[in-house]
Amino acid sequence: MTIRRRTILTGGALAGGGVAVGALGALAASGAPKPGAGAGAAPDTGSAVVAFHGARQAGIATEPPAHASFVAFTLPGGTDRRALGRMMRLLTDDARRLTQGVPALGDTDAQLAVLPARLTVTFGFGPGLYSAAKVASPVKDLPGFTIDRLEKRWSGGDLLIQICADDALTVAHAQRMLIKDARPFGAVRWVQTGFRRSPGVQQAGFTQRNLLGQLDGTANPAGGALDTAVWAPDGSTTLVVRRIRTEIEKWDLLSVTDKENAVGRRMDSGAPFTGVNERDEPDFAALDAGGLPVMPDYAHVTRAHVTDPALKILRRPYNYDGAPNAAGHPDSGLIFASYQASIERQYLPLQQRLAERDLLNEWITPIGSAVFAVPAGCAEDGWIGAEVLG
Amino acid sequence: MTIRRRTILTGGALAGGGVAVGALGALAASGAPKPGAGAGAAPDTGSAVVAFHGARQAGIATEPPAHASFVAFTLPGGTDRRALGRMMRLLTDDARRLTQGVPALGDTDAQLAVLPARLTVTFGFGPGLYSAAKVASPVKDLPGFTIDRLEKRWSGGDLLIQICADDALTVAHAQRMLIKDARPFGAVRWVQTGFRRSPGVQQAGFTQRNLLGQLDGTANPAGGALDTAVWAPDGSTTLVVRRIRTEIEKWDLLSVTDKENAVGRRMDSGAPFTGVNERDEPDFAALDAGGLPVMPDYAHVTRAHVTDPALKILRRPYNYDGAPNAAGHPDSGLIFASYQASIERQYLPLQQRLAERDLLNEWITPIGSAVFAVPAGCAEDGWIGAEVLG
Ligand code: HEM
Ligand code: HEM
Repeated sequence: MTIRRRTILTGGALAGGGVAVGALGALAASGAPKPGAGAGAAPDTGSAVVAFHGARQAGIATEPPAHASFVAFTLPGGTDRRALGRMMRLLTDDARRLTQGVPALGDTDAQLAVLPARLTVTFGFGPGLYSAAKVASPVKDLPGFTIDRLEKRWSGGDLLIQICADDALTVAHAQRMLIKDARPFGAVRWVQTGFRRSPGVQQAGFTQRNLLGQLDGTANPAGGALDTAVWAPDGSTTLVVRRIRTEIEKWDLLSVTDKENAVGRRMDSGAPFTGVNERDEPDFAALDAGGLPVMPDYAHVTRAHVTDPALKILRRPYNYDGAPNAAGHPDSGLIFASYQASIERQYLPLQQRLAERDLLNEWITPIGSAVFAVPAGCAEDGWIGAEVLG
Repeated sequence: MTIRRRTILTGGALAGGGVAVGALGALAASGAPKPGAGAGAAPDTGSAVVAFHGARQAGIATEPPAHASFVAFTLPGGTDRRALGRMMRLLTDDARRLTQGVPALGDTDAQLAVLPARLTVTFGFGPGLYSAAKVASPVKDLPGFTIDRLEKRWSGGDLLIQICADDALTVAHAQRMLIKDARPFGAVRWVQTGFRRSPGVQQAGFTQRNLLGQLDGTANPAGGALDTAVWAPDGSTTLVVRRIRTEIEKWDLLSVTDKENAVGRRMDSGAPFTGVNERDEPDFAALDAGGLPVMPDYAHVTRAHVTDPALKILRRPYNYDGAPNAAGHPDSGLIFASYQASIERQYLPLQQRLAERDLLNEWITPIGSAVFAVPAGCAEDGWIGAEVLG
C-alpha cells in the first residue's frame, strides 16, 4: 500500500476504510480529546481521535483509555545521534498517522488502522539514549529503595513507547507497526500491557477501581494544578514506570476496616476518613475523640499527600494480570506510571517517604523500575525529540 | 462479607454497589442478552447482564464480548465423583452470582463484582474428568494433524472455565474468584486470555477483524441454523479450543491479492470473490472466463464451507497477543474456540479437510489443542454437571 505523504497530511479519507479522518490538519492543543470521546462509550468510541501534534505530547493529560502497552528498547553500543534522529523521524511519522486513524507508512494491515479509539503514542527517552547522543541526560535511574525487589526483565530502557487506546486490537496493531520502525535501531527490552475499565463500564461519578478493589486516581491534580505539576515551560515532562506486584492473596485476608486503614479511605465510596464523598479533601489535622489523628499517620494517602500543587505527581496507572501459577496464585498488580515536571523534586521525596513507612507496603512490591525524559510535542512539520537529536 | 443465599436469589440490590441486580429471578432462555446490552456500547455497558440459568449454558450463543479468559485445570489422581460434585456446586454458585453482578461467596473484592458487563461463565469437562467420575466420556482428544506443532503448555485439560465479559477487570476478578473455588480440587494447567474489539468499537455493519486484518466470523450459523448445529437435544454441546499462532510477519510479505486468494474473500469488504458484500453467499460453482472456479479450490473458505446446516460449527475466536521477543517479532494468533453438537460429525471432517489442504496453513500453526464436553445449563436450584456427577 503506497500513500503519498501529502495526501495523508491533508487528511484524505482512506479508500476501503470508510472512516473519515478529521483531525489531521489541526495543530490543536495536545491531548484534547475530540467531542464525543471519553469514558461514557458512545457509538463513536472507535473513531474518536486525540490530536497528535502540539506543544506537548498526547497520552499524558488525556483521560487514560482502557488499554495500554509500554514498550522499552535497548540501544546497541555504537548507536549515534544521527541514527537516533532517523529513528525518531520514522516513529513520529507513523505515530502521527496511526493516532489519526491512518495506516502506518507501508502498513501491512491497513484495515486495522481505521478505528483509532482515542489512540495516543507517547515517546520517552532513557538515560542511555542521552549517552548515545552525547547529550546530558535530564533524568537518571531511581536509587534503590528497601522495598524494591526489582527484576531486570521489567527495568530500565533507552527508549519507551507508550501506546494507549480504548481498544486492545488498536493497541496491538499500533504496537506492531511502531516496533517494526524501532527494531532496526534497538532490541525490545520489555513490554508491559495493562488495562483499566472498558469504555462505558464505570460506576457513575466514581474514579476507576484497581485489582485490589480500590478507587484509584482520586487525588490526581487536574486543571491548572496539573499544568504546573506536569509540564516544564518547554513542553517536556518526565515519566516513571514502576511494575508493582500486589500481594493480593495476603490482601484478601484483611477485613474491610484493615484495608481502609492501610490507605486512609473507604473501600466503597473512596471517601477519606474525614469526609463522606470521594472528592472530599482529607483533613490531616482532624483528631478523633481519643486525640488521635483521624487519618492514620502511616496510611498510604497520609504519607503520599503533597500540599504544594507544583510538587504533586500525575498518576496514570494500568492494571496487569499475568497467568496465575499451577497452584492458582495470581500474578497481578499495577503498571504504576507517573508524570511530573521533575523526578528529583516531585517523585523522589514522595517515593522515599512511602518506602520508609507506608502501611500499604505490606501488600505491594516494586518488581520493575524505569525512568524516561518525555520530550516536548512537535508541530506538523516536526518530529519528537528534534530539540535533543536534531 | 456475608450474604444469605435467599437474599441473592430474590435479587436484592447490593449495599455499597449501587447497581440494581435484575435478572436473577428469571429462568430465562440461556444466553439472551438483556435489552441495551450488545456491541454498540451504551452507557449501561457496565451493568448489562446475561442470564445464567436456563436449559443451555450462557457464553455460547451470546454475541462474544470484548474479553475472554479460558482457564483449564488438571485433576490429581484419586479425584472422585463426589469431590467433582462438590467442586461444581461451588463453581455454579459463584458463577451465578458473579454473572448477575453479585459478589462471589466470601468475595474478598466485592466492589469488583458490581459491573458484570455481560459476564458469562461457561464450564467444559475434558475426557479426564469423565474418567475420574467413572462415566463414559462423550469427547476424546483430537487425533494429531500434520499441521500441528502442539505444545503441552497449551493443550489438554480436565475442567475448563470460559470467562467472557466486555471489561477486562470484570474478567480478571471473576477468574480469580473461580480459580479460588476450583484450586482445592485441581491444578491450573493453562490460562489463555484473548480480546476482540471493545464495546462501541466497530465498523458499522461489519463483523470484527482479527489480528491478520481479516473480517472473522462472517459465515457463522445464526438463528435456527445455530440451534441445530450447536445443541444436542439435552442442552449440551462440545467445545474445541485450539491455540493457533499466526505467522504474521510472513503474512506481511503478501500482497493484498495474495491474502485474499488464501481465504477466498476480499480484505476490505469481506465479500466472497463471487459477491460484493460481506454477507453474500459464496457461489462455489461459479467459473471465470478461463473456466476456472472463481472461489479458489484451496482457499480457506472453499475448504471450510459446509452446506448442511446441521454440520456447521459455531466459531467464537479471540485474538491473543503475547510479548514480542527481543528482535521485535510478535507472538500473536487466535484462541480458536468452536462449539458444535458433535466433534466427530462436525469438527473432525472439517479440520481434516483444512489440515490436508488449505492455503491459509502457510500462515497459521496450531500450537495448542483441547476438547471439552459442555454440559447442559441448570435451573435456579440446580448446578452445572449434575446429570453427569449428581
Ligand atoms: C500498587 C501500588 C499502589 C497502589 C495500589 C496505590 C493505591 C492508592 C490509592 C487507593 C490511593 C487513594 C486514591 C487516590 O487518590 O488515587 C492512592 C493515592 C496516592 N498514591 Fe498510591 N498506590 C500505589 C503506589 C503508589 C506509588 C508508587 C506512589 C508514588 C511514589 C503513589 C502515590 C500516591 C499519591 C501521591 C496519592 C494521592 C495522595 C493524596 O494527596 O491524597 N502511590 N494510591
Ligand atoms: C488462525 C486460524 C484461522 C484464521 C485466521 C481463520 C480465518 C477465517 C476467515 C477470515 C474466514 C472468512 C470469514 C468468516 O466466515 O468468518 C474463515 C471462515 C471459516 N473458517 Fe477459519 N480461520 C482459522 C482457523 C479455522 C479453523 C481451525 C477452522 C475449523 C477447523 C475454521 C473454520 C472456518 C469455517 C467453517 C469458516 C466458514 C466457511 C464458510 O462456510 O464460508 N477456521 N476463517
